[in-house]
Amino acid sequence: MMMQSFQPPRRVLMGPGPSDVGPRVLQAMARPTIGHLDPEFQALMEEIKSALQRLFNAPDHACVPLPAPGTAGMEAAIMNLLEPGDRAVIAVNGAFGGRMADMADRAGATVVTVEHDWGQPVDPARVEAALAEAPTKVLAFVHAETSTGVRSDAATLCGIARKHRALSIVDCVTSLGGIPVDAAAWDADVVYSGTQKCLSAPPGLSPIALSTRAQAAIAGRKEKVRNWLFDFNLLMGYWGGEGGRTYHHTAPINALYGLHEALVVLFEEGQQAAVVRHARAHEALVAGLEATGLRMLVDEAHRLPQLNTVLVPDGIDEAAVRAHVLKTWDLEVGAGLGPLKGKVWRIGLMGASATPWHVRLCLTALCEALAAQGFDADAKAALAAADRRLAA
Amino acid sequence: MMMQSFQPPRRVLMGPGPSDVGPRVLQAMARPTIGHLDPEFQALMEEIKSALQRLFNAPDHACVPLPAPGTAGMEAAIMNLLEPGDRAVIAVNGAFGGRMADMADRAGATVVTVEHDWGQPVDPARVEAALAEAPTKVLAFVHAETSTGVRSDAATLCGIARKHRALSIVDCVTSLGGIPVDAAAWDADVVYSGTQKCLSAPPGLSPIALSTRAQAAIAGRKEKVRNWLFDFNLLMGYWGGEGGRTYHHTAPINALYGLHEALVVLFEEGQQAAVVRHARAHEALVAGLEATGLRMLVDEAHRLPQLNTVLVPDGIDEAAVRAHVLKTWDLEVGAGLGPLKGKVWRIGLMGASATPWHVRLCLTALCEALAAQGFDADAKAALAAADRRLAA
Repeated sequence: MMMQSFQPPRRVLMGPGPSDVGPRVLQAMARPTIGHLDPEFQALMEEIKSALQRLFNAPDHACVPLPAPGTAGMEAAIMNLLEPGDRAVIAVNGAFGGRMADMADRAGATVVTVEHDWGQPVDPARVEAALAEAPTKVLAFVHAETSTGVRSDAATLCGIARKHRALSIVDCVTSLGGIPVDAAAWDADVVYSGTQKCLSAPPGLSPIALSTRAQAAIAGRKEKVRNWLFDFNLLMGYWGGEGGRTYHHTAPINALYGLHEALVVLFEEGQQAAVVRHARAHEALVAGLEATGLRMLVDEAHRLPQLNTVLVPDGIDEAAVRAHVLKTWDLEVGAGLGPLKGKVWRIGLMGASATPWHVRLCLTALCEALAAQGFDADAKAALAAADRRLAA
Repeated sequence: MMMQSFQPPRRVLMGPGPSDVGPRVLQAMARPTIGHLDPEFQALMEEIKSALQRLFNAPDHACVPLPAPGTAGMEAAIMNLLEPGDRAVIAVNGAFGGRMADMADRAGATVVTVEHDWGQPVDPARVEAALAEAPTKVLAFVHAETSTGVRSDAATLCGIARKHRALSIVDCVTSLGGIPVDAAAWDADVVYSGTQKCLSAPPGLSPIALSTRAQAAIAGRKEKVRNWLFDFNLLMGYWGGEGGRTYHHTAPINALYGLHEALVVLFEEGQQAAVVRHARAHEALVAGLEATGLRMLVDEAHRLPQLNTVLVPDGIDEAAVRAHVLKTWDLEVGAGLGPLKGKVWRIGLMGASATPWHVRLCLTALCEALAAQGFDADAKAALAAADRRLAA
């Protein structure tokens, strides 16, 4: 077998992540690798920690990028805060809430799930009822459910956790950079994210922020954390910065170059400006989709701009539509997960993929693919509707 | 705070890893990110799996690259094979054996360590005595101890595990690509490595291979694996390849481009040729070091060519030597860990850093730094001795 160098095809990434990665971030990935204990790398680590505090608005949290994809943030949060004997209330309104519950079970906790229909936001009243039943260590929920395109009310839910003396864990994998994430205003205990969504860096890192309450809870555990790589008692000796670092793992140097550059790019634009850009692209996309007769899964009040779940019309082969746009337009859109499999497309407008160009390409490609299956899709009307929103 | 793009300094990486990353691998890291469920990425995943089977000589093992640094391989191996009630025998002859024991404790296993002085290889007789005491699920050891520069006899140790019906876990983080690793000949159950040592890709991935026995043991567990991200029952649905993939995590796309290119480069050279190159560089380095009056920690019979532990002469400030070569030669060499802190330097000759150029630069820089502290280091004699070995 002769192996050849891999040359990826051209793609336009409008699925649930990764999103398009811009040339500055790609170039940063290719800079020469240096040692993870090098003084200049340690300065970079400090700069990334500060930048993550700014990104999460978490000036009093300890912030680090975990050396693995977004799921690492979830696993680190759950495994560090929970141990046998602890009660956890976990809101489940999609695939990722369910994953949190599985992890909490592995941590040895007593897990109480508050189940919702997929496509609905987390219901604060039902969560509060579950917290009121018994003393609870952790309330965990997903801010932006990537599987459904739903936004939940993080400020209210974190407030309920505080009221009941539970620590809050907020999954911000898909929200961070696309809608406001504000750990300080929410008074959240652990928030985490991934690099491959609205930050538009390659997948592989999981930024996480821990409040002083969360840090104290971890320091006061009875048992060791069941993970070693994500054990904050060890990790903070490596990333902590006070009085020299303790070797723990080898940081993924080049991935951190990429994250750093993505943050430079984001701060140049401004976080608020990026949020506005996501919102505008979303409004234009929805206007275009609705103009051609398509409908959204989620009520307008709870829609995520960066993750749009579009109902597959009756009689349409949803996989054939995705195959068509991939083949003829190099365009990736996402499929439904779990109970939404075959019923929705997931269209991402994340980071560098949240532009008018992406909206127009996607509408053009989708209408073409739908028309090929006999659906009366009017690309001209869709683009005109999107353009009107973009011009407004 | 204005964040600027990060431009790493020039460095020559001769520490315990990362090693120098060549331009082909760096360029691969910067190729456009595509989706992890893209058909072309799935073809790349298949190619990487086959390449890892070739790399480990593990044609009947399941091979995948875990999405985190080398420690992930260790954690995955320990956490998947061990559960409460299991007995594990772990050979400890350096920092990484000790880490394995910590992880096995977190897995809930009964841990029996076989302790050795740092700088000694694992003693098969003492390991066998520990296995003979009681039924044992796992024997774990480190093939190439990065903290000491010692090679242990993997074939013999794996044979002892088989004889006592224990599964073997072999840490090959530093060995793979620098000395022969042969999972089939050893009949090893789990072997794992990292990308940032003799493969000369950036840190961030951990290739791992599991025998059919190991897979059966994982499938037959009583309790869930205590890790979610590294649970092979879930991971193999993502990497398994039969009949469509199940979403698990988002693979670190660009890091996998880098690993793939590093494997293309290695196979072009030939694995055996790379082993010979490491051996020749090592012999030249040792000849040069000894010519200037320095001594190695490890007996010649057990030395790793890719990780050279050099004793710090009496009266020399070892940290000042490292600071000198970093400042004046942009050269990184490693410090001692644990009981060897302050007593040795660790000089890596790994992957792209295992060349005559690196040997000559390192000898030149070290002699200069030693001379600055009044040690009678003769760079000319060191280089002449190294050159004689290189010419032989």
